[in-house]
Amino acid sequence: MEVTLDTSPASETGGGVWRSPTGKPLCVESGAKLEPLEIAYKTYGRLNETKSNAVLVCHALTGDQHAGSINPITGRPGWWDRVIGPGRPLDPDRYFVICTNVIGGCMGSTGPATINPKTGQPYGLSFPVITIADMVRAQAMLIEALGIETLLAVVGGSMGGMQVLQWAADYPEKLFSAVCIAAAPRHSAQNIAFHEVGRQAIMADPDWRGGAYEAAVARPEKGLAVARMAAHITYLSANALQRKFGRELQRDGLSWGFDADFQVESYLRHQGASFVDRFDANSYLYITRAVDYFDLAARHGGALAEAFRKARGVRFCVLSFSSDWLYPTAESRDIVRALNAAGCRASFAEIETDKGHDAFFLDEPQLDAALRGFFASTAQARGL
Amino acid sequence: MEVTLDTSPASETGGGVWRSPTGKPLCVESGAKLEPLEIAYKTYGRLNETKSNAVLVCHALTGDQHAGSINPITGRPGWWDRVIGPGRPLDPDRYFVICTNVIGGCMGSTGPATINPKTGQPYGLSFPVITIADMVRAQAMLIEALGIETLLAVVGGSMGGMQVLQWAADYPEKLFSAVCIAAAPRHSAQNIAFHEVGRQAIMADPDWRGGAYEAAVARPEKGLAVARMAAHITYLSANALQRKFGRELQRDGLSWGFDADFQVESYLRHQGASFVDRFDANSYLYITRAVDYFDLAARHGGALAEAFRKARGVRFCVLSFSSDWLYPTAESRDIVRALNAAGCRASFAEIETDKGHDAFFLDEPQLDAALRGFFASTAQARGL
Repeated sequence: MEVTLDTSPASETGGGVWRSPTGKPLCVESGAKLEPLEIAYKTYGRLNETKSNAVLVCHALTGDQHAGSINPITGRPGWWDRVIGPGRPLDPDRYFVICTNVIGGCMGSTGPATINPKTGQPYGLSFPVITIADMVRAQAMLIEALGIETLLAVVGGSMGGMQVLQWAADYPEKLFSAVCIAAAPRHSAQNIAFHEVGRQAIMADPDWRGGAYEAAVARPEKGLAVARMAAHITYLSANALQRKFGRELQRDGLSWGFDADFQVESYLRHQGASFVDRFDANSYLYITRAVDYFDLAARHGGALAEAFRKARGVRFCVLSFSSDWLYPTAESRDIVRALNAAGCRASFAEIETDKGHDAFFLDEPQLDAALRGFFASTAQARGL
Repeated sequence: MEVTLDTSPASETGGGVWRSPTGKPLCVESGAKLEPLEIAYKTYGRLNETKSNAVLVCHALTGDQHAGSINPITGRPGWWDRVIGPGRPLDPDRYFVICTNVIGGCMGSTGPATINPKTGQPYGLSFPVITIADMVRAQAMLIEALGIETLLAVVGGSMGGMQVLQWAADYPEKLFSAVCIAAAPRHSAQNIAFHEVGRQAIMADPDWRGGAYEAAVARPEKGLAVARMAAHITYLSANALQRKFGRELQRDGLSWGFDADFQVESYLRHQGASFVDRFDANSYLYITRAVDYFDLAARHGGALAEAFRKARGVRFCVLSFSSDWLYPTAESRDIVRALNAAGCRASFAEIETDKGHDAFFLDEPQLDAALRGFFASTAQARGL
C-alpha cells in the first residue's frame, strides 16, 4: 500500500497519490470496478497520536485537493485558503486536515482521463458513471489506509456538503461531527437543468469527439467554457452581480457589436477561459452526473430521516446562505428537519449575505465565525 | 407604398410585409440606414372608421408576428392565442390588433438574414446592431403607413414590455394607453450574463462561421439549441420546474450514462431542438444585444421618470409575476415609481403565480382578467 504522506516535522503539508492495494478495487454503484483506484490528496497539519484530530474536507463540483495551499495549476491560493491555515478555523497546528480529489475528477484521482489498464487508453466515456456515494466510499478507503478510525469532522460546501451527508448515511460510526454547507439532500429539477445545459454545451463541441479527445490536438475548450459560464451565473446572486458589475462598460461607450461591452460579459468570458486551463471536459460530465443522481431520501425508502437513523452520535452543523438560489435555505431546512426527526443533534444557521452560493469560499466573516466556533467546541468535546 | 393589409369583410385576419417607400430608410441608432425596410406583420379584426381601436402587440425575444393565429412554421397556435381572439381580452370584433415581427428578427422583417441590397448577400454580421428604440421606430413607420394616428394601446411582455416603455418615451402623443408586462426599465447584470452565455454558445459552434452560414450546408443548430436551453431555464421558476418535473425519470431506472435520464433533461433538449427549426442564430445574437443595450433611464440623464415626462396623457398598466426571477416585481415597481414621479396615471398588479417569467403567455386567469378589465375600461374611456 503506497501512502506518500509526508509526516516529516519540517513540513506541515503532505499528501500525494494513494493507490489501492492489488485485489482491492473500488466497486462503484453502476456495477463496475475501478482497479487500481488512485486518490490524489493533500494534508495540512499532523495526525496526533490518538488519531483523533483528523478533519476531512470535501470539495465542490470543480474543486480539488488543494484546499489550503497554493494550487500548482493556477498558482493561486487553494479554494478554502481562508478556512485552512494558521489562526484560521481549521488550524494545522491543531487539526490534521485531509482533502482528496474526488474520483471522476481531473487532478490526480482516478477519472475519465486515467489510463484504463485493460486498454492502455484513457477511459473517456468508458469510465463508469459514478455517484456521490462512490466518491465517499473511495474517501473511506483512503481514511482507513491512513489508519484513521474516526474523523473528528467531515466538512464541505455544495457538492462537498452532499458528500458530508452521504458520509453520515453510510459511515456514521466513523464520524464525530459533520458540517454541511450550502447543500441539499437532492438535486432539484432546476439544478439538473443547468447541469444538462453544461453537458450539452460540451457534447455540442466537435472537439469533444464523443469523449475521445485525449489523443487529439484540440480539446473541447469552447464547449467547456460555455458550460462554466452558464454554471457560474448560478453561483452568484443577482444582487451580487448587480452590485459588482451593474451595467458598467468595459470601455467608454458601446461597441455596437458583439465584443464584451459590459464588464459582466468580460468577467464571464474570463471565468470560462480560465476554467478550461484547469479542468477536464469529461470530468465535468461525470461529476455533474454524480450530483444529478444524488437523492439521499430515495436511497432510504423516500424518507430522508431514515438516512440519518444511525447517525445519532454525530454532531451536525448545517449552514446555508440567504441569497443562495442554487441550494436555497429551504433545502438546508429539509436536512435539519430530517436530522431532528432522526434524533440527531444538529445546529443550523442561515448566514445573511448577498453573495449567493459561492459565499462558502468567499470573504464571509459569519461563516468563518460559525466554523471556528463549531470546530472548537467539537474538538473540546472530543477532549483535544 | 405597399401595404398588403387584407381588409376584406370575409377575413378578420390580415397582414403581410410592409416595405418602406424609396428614400425613406430606417435610420438606426448605430448610425446605419436600413433601406428598404421591411416589416412583416399580422392583423386581427378591423380598423374602425375613426381609426381609434388599434392595439399594437409587441412580441418578446423569440416571438413573432403570429400572435393570435396559427404559426405557419410550427403549425401551432400563436404565442398570445389566449389573449387575442373572439371572447378573449383582445377580441377582434372590437379591436384592430396589429403585431409586427421586430427588425433584426427572422420571420420576414429586415434582419441579419435579409439580402443586403448593396452586396446581394445576406447581411450576416454586417447587419447593424439595433436597439429597442430602433424596433419601436420601425413599428411607428408601419403604424403611420396604416394611417393610424393614435394607438388605443400598445401592449407586450418581456422584451415586448420594453418596447411598450420605449413607445411611451418616444411617441407618447401616439398612445392612448400602454400595458407593460413582466419587463424592466433596463437589463440587469444577471440578464446580460445569461444572454452572453447564449451568444457564446452560438459563436462557439463552428457552423456559425462568423455569422456567414447562410450559404453553407450546415447552420449553427447545436450552439443555438444550447443558447435556448440556458435561456429557457430562466423563463420558468424553480418551483414550476420542480412541480412539473421534479426528479421524474424518462424510463424505469437510471441509464448510468449521459442520455436524458430525467424528464427535465428531455424537456430541455426538446426546447432546444424545436427552437432551431423556427429561429435564426444571428437574429438571436442581434435581438439579445438589443435587450442588453436597453436602459431607458440612461437615455434620459439617468432619471427614469424623465423618460415618461411627456406621457402624462397615457393610461399605464404595469403587471408583474411573483415568481418571475428574470424581471422580478421590484423592477416593475421601479417603472411604477417613475411613472408616478412623472405624474402619469398607472395601475399596477403583481400576479401571484409560480409559473415564472413565461406566465405572460401561459394559462394565468388573473392575467386574463387584468388585461380584459384594462382594455375594456380603456376602450370605454375612448368612447368605443
